[in-house]
Amino acid sequence: MNMVEMILKKKEGGALSPEEIRAFARGAADGSIPDYQLSALLMAICWRGMTAEETACLTMEMMNSGDVVDLSAIGGVCVDKHSTGGVGDTTTLVLVPLAAACGAKVAKLSGRGLGHTGGTLDKLESIPGCSVEKTEEEFVRQVKEIGCAVIGQSGDLCPADKALYALRDVTGTVGSIPLIASSIVSKKLASGAGAIVLDVKTGSGALMQTVEESIELAKTMADIGALAGRPILALVTGMGQPLGTHVGNALEVKEAIDILSGRAGGDLLAVSLELGSRMLIASGIAADVEDGKARMMEALHSGAGLRKLAEMIAAQGGDPRVCEDTAYLPHAAYKISVPALADGYVASMDTTAIGYCAQDLGAGRKEKTDVIDPAVGLVMDVRLGDYVKAGQSLATLYLNKPELANPAVLRMQSAIVLSDEKPAPQPLVYAAVSHEEILRFD
Amino acid sequence: MNMVEMILKKKEGGALSPEEIRAFARGAADGSIPDYQLSALLMAICWRGMTAEETACLTMEMMNSGDVVDLSAIGGVCVDKHSTGGVGDTTTLVLVPLAAACGAKVAKLSGRGLGHTGGTLDKLESIPGCSVEKTEEEFVRQVKEIGCAVIGQSGDLCPADKALYALRDVTGTVGSIPLIASSIVSKKLASGAGAIVLDVKTGSGALMQTVEESIELAKTMADIGALAGRPILALVTGMGQPLGTHVGNALEVKEAIDILSGRAGGDLLAVSLELGSRMLIASGIAADVEDGKARMMEALHSGAGLRKLAEMIAAQGGDPRVCEDTAYLPHAAYKISVPALADGYVASMDTTAIGYCAQDLGAGRKEKTDVIDPAVGLVMDVRLGDYVKAGQSLATLYLNKPELANPAVLRMQSAIVLSDEKPAPQPLVYAAVSHEEILRFD
Repeated sequence: MNMVEMILKKKEGGALSPEEIRAFARGAADGSIPDYQLSALLMAICWRGMTAEETACLTMEMMNSGDVVDLSAIGGVCVDKHSTGGVGDTTTLVLVPLAAACGAKVAKLSGRGLGHTGGTLDKLESIPGCSVEKTEEEFVRQVKEIGCAVIGQSGDLCPADKALYALRDVTGTVGSIPLIASSIVSKKLASGAGAIVLDVKTGSGALMQTVEESIELAKTMADIGALAGRPILALVTGMGQPLGTHVGNALEVKEAIDILSGRAGGDLLAVSLELGSRMLIASGIAADVEDGKARMMEALHSGAGLRKLAEMIAAQGGDPRVCEDTAYLPHAAYKISVPALADGYVASMDTTAIGYCAQDLGAGRKEKTDVIDPAVGLVMDVRLGDYVKAGQSLATLYLNKPELANPAVLRMQSAIVLSDEKPAPQPLVYAAVSHEEILRFD
Repeated sequence: MNMVEMILKKKEGGALSPEEIRAFARGAADGSIPDYQLSALLMAICWRGMTAEETACLTMEMMNSGDVVDLSAIGGVCVDKHSTGGVGDTTTLVLVPLAAACGAKVAKLSGRGLGHTGGTLDKLESIPGCSVEKTEEEFVRQVKEIGCAVIGQSGDLCPADKALYALRDVTGTVGSIPLIASSIVSKKLASGAGAIVLDVKTGSGALMQTVEESIELAKTMADIGALAGRPILALVTGMGQPLGTHVGNALEVKEAIDILSGRAGGDLLAVSLELGSRMLIASGIAADVEDGKARMMEALHSGAGLRKLAEMIAAQGGDPRVCEDTAYLPHAAYKISVPALADGYVASMDTTAIGYCAQDLGAGRKEKTDVIDPAVGLVMDVRLGDYVKAGQSLATLYLNKPELANPAVLRMQSAIVLSDEKPAPQPLVYAAVSHEEILRFD
């Protein structure tokens, strides 16, 4: 396989053959293709795109470049859910217990926080004693016994994607729909699930900033699923503001528990029901979206969801008492309000900046080796469209280092834009995308 | 300077600032920017192009990344000529002596053969004893004394270009007008000439296969010259067939001597006069193209051009008797005709294939370390538009390894396309391009 010829073919807008894509993925995984050729090809792919067949082929080759988790011992359709990454997005901790309480089998491999977005593993680890490390055997056994598990990957999953992802990050080649789609789906397929529900975020805090691009990414991933014989349904949901009100690890666990206890609701619950109902459909449990939502609400009202979360936490070594009393979660030493500087409607938010603000307080990592402070973060006191008076609190910062307060207050004040005009309301779910159809709700 | 931000800026179609381009060129020259980031940026430049200011800035930064030859001791305007690379293109050995005989100062740094194209240094070295290595001081002295010198570069010229060129070659990023233009012009400017005449080849044997692209490349280079304060004039000339009839090192020297002796002429002489007359204009010797051509023809008919070539060969340690008797040049042991397989007009030629055929016979290098056989090559027996009968010779192969004859004959037969229809004649010079104007002749 001549790598220069492959690069030139893509540069001139041609489609790579399955053999060429296999050589590309294998060469990336085993290091036999030099990085400078990989990065030139990646940029040419950003330029010329990939056909549906090329993208599916790249996905399968990346999946097959390493270990593939075998969930067959669990029996039935295992269903997985994945988000492209948001701020204040704790849907996993709400919908996994609810779906499992409804009878779904949820075997979920999650990730760490990345950039301005949080990660479910970091959130779980903020629960005293809770571990996210299990062998594949232990993982399968836990899902069999209690219906759900959320852990980090143990095996060598998708080494080709790992190599390409690291290179994309430092060569400006992250933003390409076929590359994003194949990276996400290869990992999900390697994680073993039979059906996958994806949450593609759109807006100021998301990888894809426009609805059209988000729908294109969603459709690309659904099409790969169809070619791979594993149904993928994707919802395109808004990330024009943090989804929940809480941003930060223990704070987000607290919000999930508040929701499962019936003490809170809002957009985070609404999106969790939308995603969870599709997981129940994919599992063959719910007949349609309304039926799925009704089942999940029943599990919420009966307390079955909260009990399932406590079971899962206990199965992973954590203290289940947090579900009864969130005071068992770590908490920060200081609480500081972010006052509005003027009267006005909350017109827009720079959600990415809000995510980085929580990171600055210690809720995320700037470098891979940084240690997270599980207690810190922020709680939004306003939503888009609210009217505030000068001095009223926009958000509350939770921190352990008081010297971080002032810059964070200023950053939050500039991230939350006030205006004399009330903004038009934005939909929570823009579209539901499957291989067969694109249903738009906006 | 954040390299990922630079890559993203270019990927999104923005223009790099002079500071960014400086960082790029310096980082390429000193190796401080990793190759995988350089190659991603190079591919993004292939995609998005560069503005005239960016291209000129990159050229100057590459020039200033290393040594710059100082020709001021020679006095007057030193003029240089450069070709983008052709097959059977011996214009340098025809026009340098003629222009010098007319009073021009020609201080030329030449290159080796590259791919399917020949290199003047390899041709000069086919002359017994002739050397192309000189110190800068010896180079300046020779031009002062006899008016011309053609040598290889000795100093560390354009290390940024060297690094980027090597990387472009292995990452499919050669084909980009701003990258080609800045690479050529940076080397020419670093070589010290006050005025430069460029020969941009177009057609089946050229880097640029279409006339429009060739004119765009020519205009880009002329514009850089204007911004750099060194006039550049570029002719776009045809490479739809080998320019001269001889392809191979000693064979091409023989053809140049035949022309300077008045025994041969044709397209090679015609293009040499076109280019040389512009050099005489740039040197302030000729008033216009007609005057320049007349002066060069006078130098040819008087024998002054041939004597100047003999002087130059002697000054570079070679045997000047080759100018009197080309039997002093190395000659091949075998001569093989390539017979036409049918009657017909010579309708087109794959000039690149003809160049590679000469390379296969030993006239060029496949690997950098290959040793050239100076005697081998081929002589074209037909021109485009000629009518041939089956069995008539299309070309004559000169070789030392008889086992190479058969594949070369087959390759030549398929490279020379015969047809029942007489092809339309093609212009020799398509355009003359300066910063001020594009004169088209086609």
